Amino acid sequence: MTVKDMLGRSGVVSREEALNILNERLSVFNLTSQEISISAALGRVLALDITSTADLPEFNRSTMDGYAVRSGDTFGAAESRPALLRVVGDIPMGTMPDRSIVNGEAMKIATGGALPQGADAVVMFEHIQPVDTESIEVVKAVAPQENVTLAGEDITKGERVLSKGHVIRPQDMAALASMGITRIAVFGKPRVAIISTGNEIVPADTFPGPGQIRDSNSYSLEGFITLASGIPVKMGIIPDDYGRLQRALEDAVQDCSLVLFTGGSSVGTADFTAKVINDLGPPGVLVHGVSIKPGKPLIIGLVKRKEGNEQIPVFGLPGHQAAVAICFELFVKPILTRLTGAISDPALEGVAPNRTVKAKLARSIPSSPGREDHVRVTLEKREDGLWAKPVFGASGLISTLVKAAGTVVVPVNKIGIDVGEDVEVRLF
Amino acid sequence: MTVKDMLGRSGVVSREEALNILNERLSVFNLTSQEISISAALGRVLALDITSTADLPEFNRSTMDGYAVRSGDTFGAAESRPALLRVVGDIPMGTMPDRSIVNGEAMKIATGGALPQGADAVVMFEHIQPVDTESIEVVKAVAPQENVTLAGEDITKGERVLSKGHVIRPQDMAALASMGITRIAVFGKPRVAIISTGNEIVPADTFPGPGQIRDSNSYSLEGFITLASGIPVKMGIIPDDYGRLQRALEDAVQDCSLVLFTGGSSVGTADFTAKVINDLGPPGVLVHGVSIKPGKPLIIGLVKRKEGNEQIPVFGLPGHQAAVAICFELFVKPILTRLTGAISDPALEGVAPNRTVKAKLARSIPSSPGREDHVRVTLEKREDGLWAKPVFGASGLISTLVKAAGTVVVPVNKIGIDVGEDVEVRLF
Repeated sequence: MTVKDMLGRSGVVSREEALNILNERLSVFNLTSQEISISAALGRVLALDITSTADLPEFNRSTMDGYAVRSGDTFGAAESRPALLRVVGDIPMGTMPDRSIVNGEAMKIATGGALPQGADAVVMFEHIQPVDTESIEVVKAVAPQENVTLAGEDITKGERVLSKGHVIRPQDMAALASMGITRIAVFGKPRVAIISTGNEIVPADTFPGPGQIRDSNSYSLEGFITLASGIPVKMGIIPDDYGRLQRALEDAVQDCSLVLFTGGSSVGTADFTAKVINDLGPPGVLVHGVSIKPGKPLIIGLVKRKEGNEQIPVFGLPGHQAAVAICFELFVKPILTRLTGAISDPALEGVAPNRTVKAKLARSIPSSPGREDHVRVTLEKREDGLWAKPVFGASGLISTLVKAAGTVVVPVNKIGIDVGEDVEVRLF
Repeated sequence: MTVKDMLGRSGVVSREEALNILNERLSVFNLTSQEISISAALGRVLALDITSTADLPEFNRSTMDGYAVRSGDTFGAAESRPALLRVVGDIPMGTMPDRSIVNGEAMKIATGGALPQGADAVVMFEHIQPVDTESIEVVKAVAPQENVTLAGEDITKGERVLSKGHVIRPQDMAALASMGITRIAVFGKPRVAIISTGNEIVPADTFPGPGQIRDSNSYSLEGFITLASGIPVKMGIIPDDYGRLQRALEDAVQDCSLVLFTGGSSVGTADFTAKVINDLGPPGVLVHGVSIKPGKPLIIGLVKRKEGNEQIPVFGLPGHQAAVAICFELFVKPILTRLTGAISDPALEGVAPNRTVKAKLARSIPSSPGREDHVRVTLEKREDGLWAKPVFGASGLISTLVKAAGTVVVPVNKIGIDVGEDVEVRLF
């Protein structure tokens, strides 16, 4: 048995292949749902379609401050030829008009006010001249329905306003409130287990002994999981011991919808991680090794819960801090998003609307063919624009991630990027 | 007194001017600080610089699985001319080596393991051939420090790792954990008061009477404030009554760092809103009217707390839903960000790294010169790429905001955008 076989890396696959393999195999996962207040709904995923039970607005409303009129009375009106109208009352906000109007009449109305029967348009204050307390001159014609929102024009009774799988944005909270829907059913956030592995790892709040280091990956993972709408569940630090790793994975699989091992895919612990995943399969390990840098030793697997037929994705993330960040973004996040129940706008699929900025590359980046390189960069504003400076350094250095503003990708089919070339920086 | 004077809109200013006026006048604001766990620190703003109290790593570490060696022993090594080394032990993870090595010796080591005294490099497993249990052949030379992270190479003792004003990202949580810093001082999140105004407004969970509508803007504002790292504080619905509005503003100013009136800048309530702001000044109202659409009737003011010299920014947001969204993004968010204590990367200033996508415009957008138009668009994927379709409709329609994927901006100096032109869509 060669070291290469031991590592199980003989079948390194591309980023796309790795993700496709898992996405195709992951067919059964359960989504729970819960009812919450719309005030707490930001970023949550709708578990049911939302249908309006009433027309919105419920009455013809003015969109301007002015006078409700019959548009026909204003036809041909101009500064030189104003239309004289009799003011027969005003419409206090929050009430229905106490009368209707006929030809030659107008009522004072504010933005949002309810139009009286007989009126079909609103003339803005700016286009009238007061004559006396009882009459006005209109100096500009209005068309029928001008400055008016008709009942039901915004939302029609029975209309599906938001769909199952939609991620709630602030304006959706307002739309729900407008319809009087103040509680909604959303999917439960997926619980994501974090299992820190390695004999050398000690808790962050302790003082490491000789040769030991503090657990840090579980903290960045907490942050990444929270940003991706999951609930981080820390399972503690497990030493490189097959039995203890197996029990930790079993516990995690019962309690969570996704499991992340960190520090468990270099040779020291990779065999354990792969073995416990395989022993809880089938299918077990699906991918061991991807052609990206950093992040090559990534393990992706799928295991089953003891009861039921639910499948739980398991990732063995490389221990290096930069590799954890890149592997989370590229592999864990898309799967976690599926587990939230979110359905993204099909128009945006594959468009990757990340927070990015354009810059010029300040130093050439070398790369190997057949490998997708994710290079951390700092940003510098110069007279001629923004420049991205690659931060070189082992992927194990946390300082390179802290100093960097984002990453530049060298695609798999490109051998590096030259100094001065335009690049897109994906911001952290 | 003309209606125009009543509205106080004679001095409409540009978006940049409006923001500059407030930013320059807002000089005194207090930031509180609190100590929290790094697990809860995502998105929070550091109130103090973070300095490392130790070197990181604290010992020379291997970045590979392999053998710790003296690099000089491998010089000239090749497949055809391997260097023979005696294996004198291995280094279990989490321990310091129990001995040092001299010329001709090697010790087995895993990624993250501590190098023994005498070793200055690590040969990867892939570049050795086992001879017997006690010796190996090295088939590729290593340079001094190859595959090694030196003590202090990542972070040096006394180095400032993160600065006051920095917004905590997942990788920063890991960096703090690495240094054993598990609690940090962060600025308190700014409390932002939301005062819904208007006689026609009723709570969202009630059934509106004739001419009434439900409060909805306070819900979208809750969402926008949360996204911008503030704490929304709902002050309830206040009718158009000078005394009650004044008491509500006084209460809000005592309790919050920023106050938002919603529904209070159309003519019906604009005079009240402007008056209560002026009466709690000076300076009171700074801006009344900006040359953007939607959002023109925006009021911006600055008032003082009863005690102390702290100044509280107050915004009178137009009541229309689309105007609320645009005014928040353009005016409230930058001020709220200042109040969080966050200091953004100077390289990114003015670069606006929003979530954007490129598209072609599917229908021409007309616009008036001297006005910045923010037009809502839906996105459609066609064979030749992404197309943005303007959603026309009064800014009071919530459905246009719900259906839209984002906005396209027609700059102030441009008269519309033609069909087929490339546009940048700022996603919601």
